[in-house]
Amino acid sequence: MSFSITLPDGSKKEYEEALSISDLAHNIATSLGKAAVAGKVNGKIKPLDFQLDKDSEVAIITDKDEEGLDVLRATAAFVFEAVAKNKYPELRFGDHVADEGGFYVDTDKSDQIKVSELPEFEKAMQKMIKNGQAIERVEVAKSELEDRFKDDPYKLELLKKIDGEKVDAYKLGDFVDFGFDALLPNTGKIKNYKLLSVAGAYWLGKSSNPMLQRIFGTAFFKKAALDEDLKRRQEIKERDHRTIGRDLDLFFVDPKVGAGLPYWMPKGATIRRVVERYIVDKEVADGYKHVYTPVLMNVDAYKTSGHWAHYRDDMFPPMDMGDGEMLELRPMNCPSHIQIYKHHIRSYRDLPLRIAELGMMHRYEKSGALSGLQRVREMTLNDGHTFVSLDQIREEFAKVLKLIMDVYHDFGITDYYFRLSYRDPKNTDKYYANDEMWETSQSMLKAAMDDLGLDYVEAEGEAAFYGPKLDIQTKTALGNDETMSTIQLDFMLPERFGLKYVGQDGEEHQPVMIHRGIVGTMERFIAYLIEIYKGAFPTWLAPVQAEIIPVNNEAHGEYAEKVRAELAKRGFRVEVDDRNEKLGYKIRESQTQKVPYTLVLGDEEMKSNSVNVRRYGTEEEISKSLEDFINEIEADVKSYSREN
Amino acid sequence: MSFSITLPDGSKKEYEEALSISDLAHNIATSLGKAAVAGKVNGKIKPLDFQLDKDSEVAIITDKDEEGLDVLRATAAFVFEAVAKNKYPELRFGDHVADEGGFYVDTDKSDQIKVSELPEFEKAMQKMIKNGQAIERVEVAKSELEDRFKDDPYKLELLKKIDGEKVDAYKLGDFVDFGFDALLPNTGKIKNYKLLSVAGAYWLGKSSNPMLQRIFGTAFFKKAALDEDLKRRQEIKERDHRTIGRDLDLFFVDPKVGAGLPYWMPKGATIRRVVERYIVDKEVADGYKHVYTPVLMNVDAYKTSGHWAHYRDDMFPPMDMGDGEMLELRPMNCPSHIQIYKHHIRSYRDLPLRIAELGMMHRYEKSGALSGLQRVREMTLNDGHTFVSLDQIREEFAKVLKLIMDVYHDFGITDYYFRLSYRDPKNTDKYYANDEMWETSQSMLKAAMDDLGLDYVEAEGEAAFYGPKLDIQTKTALGNDETMSTIQLDFMLPERFGLKYVGQDGEEHQPVMIHRGIVGTMERFIAYLIEIYKGAFPTWLAPVQAEIIPVNNEAHGEYAEKVRAELAKRGFRVEVDDRNEKLGYKIRESQTQKVPYTLVLGDEEMKSNSVNVRRYGTEEEISKSLEDFINEIEADVKSYSREN
Repeated sequence: MSFSITLPDGSKKEYEEALSISDLAHNIATSLGKAAVAGKVNGKIKPLDFQLDKDSEVAIITDKDEEGLDVLRATAAFVFEAVAKNKYPELRFGDHVADEGGFYVDTDKSDQIKVSELPEFEKAMQKMIKNGQAIERVEVAKSELEDRFKDDPYKLELLKKIDGEKVDAYKLGDFVDFGFDALLPNTGKIKNYKLLSVAGAYWLGKSSNPMLQRIFGTAFFKKAALDEDLKRRQEIKERDHRTIGRDLDLFFVDPKVGAGLPYWMPKGATIRRVVERYIVDKEVADGYKHVYTPVLMNVDAYKTSGHWAHYRDDMFPPMDMGDGEMLELRPMNCPSHIQIYKHHIRSYRDLPLRIAELGMMHRYEKSGALSGLQRVREMTLNDGHTFVSLDQIREEFAKVLKLIMDVYHDFGITDYYFRLSYRDPKNTDKYYANDEMWETSQSMLKAAMDDLGLDYVEAEGEAAFYGPKLDIQTKTALGNDETMSTIQLDFMLPERFGLKYVGQDGEEHQPVMIHRGIVGTMERFIAYLIEIYKGAFPTWLAPVQAEIIPVNNEAHGEYAEKVRAELAKRGFRVEVDDRNEKLGYKIRESQTQKVPYTLVLGDEEMKSNSVNVRRYGTEEEISKSLEDFINEIEADVKSYSREN
Repeated sequence: MSFSITLPDGSKKEYEEALSISDLAHNIATSLGKAAVAGKVNGKIKPLDFQLDKDSEVAIITDKDEEGLDVLRATAAFVFEAVAKNKYPELRFGDHVADEGGFYVDTDKSDQIKVSELPEFEKAMQKMIKNGQAIERVEVAKSELEDRFKDDPYKLELLKKIDGEKVDAYKLGDFVDFGFDALLPNTGKIKNYKLLSVAGAYWLGKSSNPMLQRIFGTAFFKKAALDEDLKRRQEIKERDHRTIGRDLDLFFVDPKVGAGLPYWMPKGATIRRVVERYIVDKEVADGYKHVYTPVLMNVDAYKTSGHWAHYRDDMFPPMDMGDGEMLELRPMNCPSHIQIYKHHIRSYRDLPLRIAELGMMHRYEKSGALSGLQRVREMTLNDGHTFVSLDQIREEFAKVLKLIMDVYHDFGITDYYFRLSYRDPKNTDKYYANDEMWETSQSMLKAAMDDLGLDYVEAEGEAAFYGPKLDIQTKTALGNDETMSTIQLDFMLPERFGLKYVGQDGEEHQPVMIHRGIVGTMERFIAYLIEIYKGAFPTWLAPVQAEIIPVNNEAHGEYAEKVRAELAKRGFRVEVDDRNEKLGYKIRESQTQKVPYTLVLGDEEMKSNSVNVRRYGTEEEISKSLEDFINEIEADVKSYSREN
């Protein structure tokens, strides 16, 4: 027997006898032997005791590698399982995952483990870790595991998914589990770990399956890395629009009445209404004609548009209305706006024709992908389609861009970049087939951006199937890239729907369509705003702009009502907190609810027709006349100030 | 042979020999003989030559009776058919109908007859009428007609629907048709008639059948009655929201893209947006919390609510979303608002909880019933549900009523009455079964109305299935009663959905729901507004509030733009008409489009920074400074003035 091991640097080592990955690492260097946590053999992660006995490519995975972290986290997940099984011997486990996000373990009791128990589990894990207990790997026949787990439908189903007759199982004392690429041979290395949270999750991600309980955790080799990660998680949590949405009572989603279908509670609805009116007014002032078109359309229109052929998986099931009519909940508004265009004979004098709508659409997202307001199945898009002649493209493009920048300024959006999205030149059959159109329009967009002197990145393969586009990319609180606004050229739909206009020459011409969105869907935009403001909305957007708190309901209630009426009359959103609670409690709650202005009214204020104002986020209390305050809040609202 | 004829006054006449209805009439009185146009034998209309030969109840139908008019109109329809067949021998006829609305005849060529031909047909009819031609009735075997019409699929299908083996056919010269209860024996009496219009109509009203052409007409015994009817038709036509909607470019419906699914063109959309913002602001100021809830909901909610069992025929087909989820386009918003209520534990301090929404709903109306904006399949309801404790019902009821009256005042709605709608006491199983609830709540509503000193009618059988209601009934331009607003008590849904609140006593109680609509659906309300205003919207609602016309585009175009910008900046909806058309033409068109203010700008105006104003509906042109005009239009908008 003789075989060679090829290392990542290309060097080869020849061996006569089988050796483990750990041996190999020590063989290369003692320090590497110490740092090794697993190996990668022909591209597959294998544990340290894995025996090398034939020609292979091998890389040693250490505590510096991403994959080393995965092994550490998988080991932590396994130790958690052992500990949980100790406490609840009846508990069964579903899937377990370890990746760059941490680890999680699913358990079959949907409400067994309370968040409050997690510290106790951490302590129990700590005990096992301190002892440096051995984790033993055994290669066993699948049938042996099937027998061991014969009363556990979850493990049996997971076993079915494993190819081959031999399975790696791991043992920690009496506890056995499988399905890991590699675990550490000993609990001792798991020093820096944390159990994070619990949540519900459907078995295998299908909502028709039973609800399991998922326990999240993470682990690091270094304490500093764990601390930093926990800090980042805290930050994300503080910004998570779902958490803030719940705490500020802005919206909720209940899969029992409809997965991905949000209910906007009064406060969330107020923010949305302000945003909707703002954007509609802005667009009307900019020459857009706002319309209302039906959310349903005959499926034939989507056959004409090509959506039926290319986009059907993302559409809702059609409805048979009888009389030969099949209706679709629209997945986009373009064909609707084309109806508006086609309703009249158009001439060059009508162009550019800017049609806009707060258009409700429905898209079928997989239930596992749904998330708060960010990923939903029913959404209302700030949509617009401008019909232009060829020579109007550049000017119209610049006009839309200016509108977008204006709007970003008002919302205080500063963290964004431009992306010109082209078709994938290696995959042109994925797109509308008209090479000339693609060449012309891609270079047209590029020229327009250069004209405007704006920086941009170019992204091949990010275009729509009908044409190239400019995307404006923002970052979510979780650090993900998100397309906020878009300007798209479309030569295809005008052709498919036979759109025409009579030119100055008296001849028929085909217009170009510009699809554009300024703030995207109301759902995603407000999720984004919640995150960038951490729920502390600037005054013009805040659902409650001023909270009025009488020091004493009896004595100052009437004055509080007078101030409320005075402010409400001027269109401000004001509430009086006249509950029988302590003053301090009410002031704190007004801060928790992130109300921009808290007005405390007592004897002093009543006497002098004034208010005692505390601005959100400050400790200062400033007394001023009611009139001065009205001027202040008025200016604040008008300025779209980012300050809350 | 001996038989007796019983007349409507109960008197009997004995006869030995058969006699015709005409004979009988002459027999009773010569004047009756002359006035007779048909008879009613045992409740069935029969022609004058119908032979009476057994015991029967008979009434003579004269030219004073409604049914006499039907016979006259049927005869006119028949004569029209004969005349049309003369001109187009290939023409086949579908159905023909004569009733209180006039008559119509369907023909198989969908675009054969032009409106412009109608006078020619009238002349041809006149010829036949002048001659006083005989119309002969023959009783023939069905098979004989089947043979005669063997190449006419329409008549063959109509024949199939006739019971019995003998059919009354009528002959006028060579022309033969059937399916009439009775015709006059001679064309001579059809003196006052009119062919009105042509339209498309599906064979047997089914949109999967071929499209036929329907020719409408009417006839009267007296010229004065015809003239009055034509005047009324003209008036209705002028107010018909579909006609005005087309002329002012407010909306359209295209069955090819969706039956009953209106597209709101920019001008119609502007009116709708103004109405929506008005009503939302009004409600928010009145203590309502506006929300947005999904248009889709799990079908289970409608099973709980009872809609699935009782209302399913009016609902859209459900959609299978996979994962065991069935979604319904909601036919009403109540279950959605119940979700909002249930999202928190509620206490007596939350009540009354007023939840409102511009809620989009979908109802399956038969395609034949659809009409413009008035009868649609997708609609947005100005909906609201207030959750109250028992002892708050009366006060909340009065509050809603006050809001309704306020809104009516702003829209200038004055022609309405109150209707208390109770369950049908003879048919109580059609309603939610709880006698005590019905008794209590019906008398509660009545007491509240009496308290308020308001007049009302009481209507048994008009209640909702879950409770009694107050309906506010208005009249449409076509004279139909329409429910504009409604306040409904509901004890049932709170029970079905297990709604609760914690009372002051610390115990759980069940709230009562008040369903209320102020202006109904946007679709029907705006159809109604179009009709009451005849399209001449008051300034605050007008899609274009001022049309600016430069006398000379070159010379005054810049000043026109300055005035436009000045007005637009203040939020007014203004347009500049700078087309290359004559001044007079542009002014006329501004009037045709019913724009409240037409501003003509020439040298004079430019020099003095003024405008020359013509108010819609007046001939006066008044020059005033731009500032004065701004003050005028501002006051006009603010006053919700009914004057356009």
